[in-house]
Amino acid sequence: MDNLLKKGERIEDLGLENLKIIQNPEYFCFGMDAVLLSWFVSKRTKGSIHIIDLGTGTGIIPLLLYGKTQAQSITGLEIQEPLVEMARRSVALNRLSAQIKIIHGDITKPGEEIIPNFYDVVVSNPPYMRAQAGLKNKQETKTISRHEILCNIEDILIFSKRMLKDRGRLFLVHRPERLGDIISLMRTYKIEVKHLQFVYPSIKKEANLVLIEGRKSGRPGLKADAPLIVYNEEGQYTQEIYDIYGMTKPE
Amino acid sequence: MDNLLKKGERIEDLGLENLKIIQNPEYFCFGMDAVLLSWFVSKRTKGSIHIIDLGTGTGIIPLLLYGKTQAQSITGLEIQEPLVEMARRSVALNRLSAQIKIIHGDITKPGEEIIPNFYDVVVSNPPYMRAQAGLKNKQETKTISRHEILCNIEDILIFSKRMLKDRGRLFLVHRPERLGDIISLMRTYKIEVKHLQFVYPSIKKEANLVLIEGRKSGRPGLKADAPLIVYNEEGQYTQEIYDIYGMTKPE
Repeated sequence: MDNLLKKGERIEDLGLENLKIIQNPEYFCFGMDAVLLSWFVSKRTKGSIHIIDLGTGTGIIPLLLYGKTQAQSITGLEIQEPLVEMARRSVALNRLSAQIKIIHGDITKPGEEIIPNFYDVVVSNPPYMRAQAGLKNKQETKTISRHEILCNIEDILIFSKRMLKDRGRLFLVHRPERLGDIISLMRTYKIEVKHLQFVYPSIKKEANLVLIEGRKSGRPGLKADAPLIVYNEEGQYTQEIYDIYGMTKPE
Repeated sequence: MDNLLKKGERIEDLGLENLKIIQNPEYFCFGMDAVLLSWFVSKRTKGSIHIIDLGTGTGIIPLLLYGKTQAQSITGLEIQEPLVEMARRSVALNRLSAQIKIIHGDITKPGEEIIPNFYDVVVSNPPYMRAQAGLKNKQETKTISRHEILCNIEDILIFSKRMLKDRGRLFLVHRPERLGDIISLMRTYKIEVKHLQFVYPSIKKEANLVLIEGRKSGRPGLKADAPLIVYNEEGQYTQEIYDIYGMTKPE
């Protein structure tokens, strides 16, 4: 197993179906947003579907969706070579190379491995921040993971419109700040927003994340799911968060 | 005072600054949505502004905003003659004819009394339901108050774009179901969505209302305010609802 790990890397147990992932603090490490998005996708999908994760990073979403759904195939697309290589080692570590494919590629120029009108689900935890003019370190992997340098919302919608089956679904997690852009662009690309679930750090605070489901060629008509509250008034995780992480709440 | 009341009508005390309103069960009576919208507007505005309420009905929103803001002028626009007449009597009952003007008119053909680029705030609690083809009783006042027969979301945006000052604000309450339409149309008319506050009947249920603030010529960037929960787990109003209604919670 040791030859799967490089210097500075660690293995994290995902607490789900004995799955593990390699992380490296030098790169962008997965956060609660990836976990919430995977939960949101898994509660809203069923059956032996084909899933593709855009900007898969270290492969966290494909691994969690493998554990939480009955998907027939899961593909992760990533543009950054060091992350592709790490994600592939995580897949190998879990002996899932037959089930999860990590592709090195650019969502704006998808290769022939990615088949139009094929996917039931496109999922993405994209960079949240606009690519400002003055941005430094545009080559740095953490910067690319956080800022819309190599992938923005419109790129995701162009990809989804082309690659999703008719009536297929797009799932995103993003900052509420960008929701106006997202909903307007979704409509432009004929992917209609169907579900929103806002994530509030506590019941008295404004939302800091929103989970979004859109449907290709869907009709207008949106539901806003029950609020997801992260911390209770004592500053501890709520029962719902423990349930999503598959952890037992300490007494 | 008796000559202000007609057969079948009753006077309701608004529990705010001694304000009263005439209601008639034959017409659409105001609900929690009007109260929540007035609260949402009042917490997000200040100073001696000019406000216009589209589809004011029995005049509930102008009366509540009179009680809750320092507005310099409040105008209510209503197309249905019997409601205009009733709203005017409610304004007279409160001796507010100098402060609140009720205009009989159509938002799609505003008269010369309504001045372009003048208002700081446009507010509306519009009909929520699409005007279906098979709709019966299209003349009936309750039907007109509930269905988009004489006023739809696009009409409100066309009016707001024309009548709001630059950077003026539009406040709406609506069903989450229509939010995709609303946000997309707002962008079309250069009124950018800035704040959303979702209203959940209880913490475990999906939202049934959403409060919306848009800004004319605003830049993209949205905040989703803390969730507004109506009932607690015992089925009683939450403290926040008591506060909004200005009532004391029973022990």
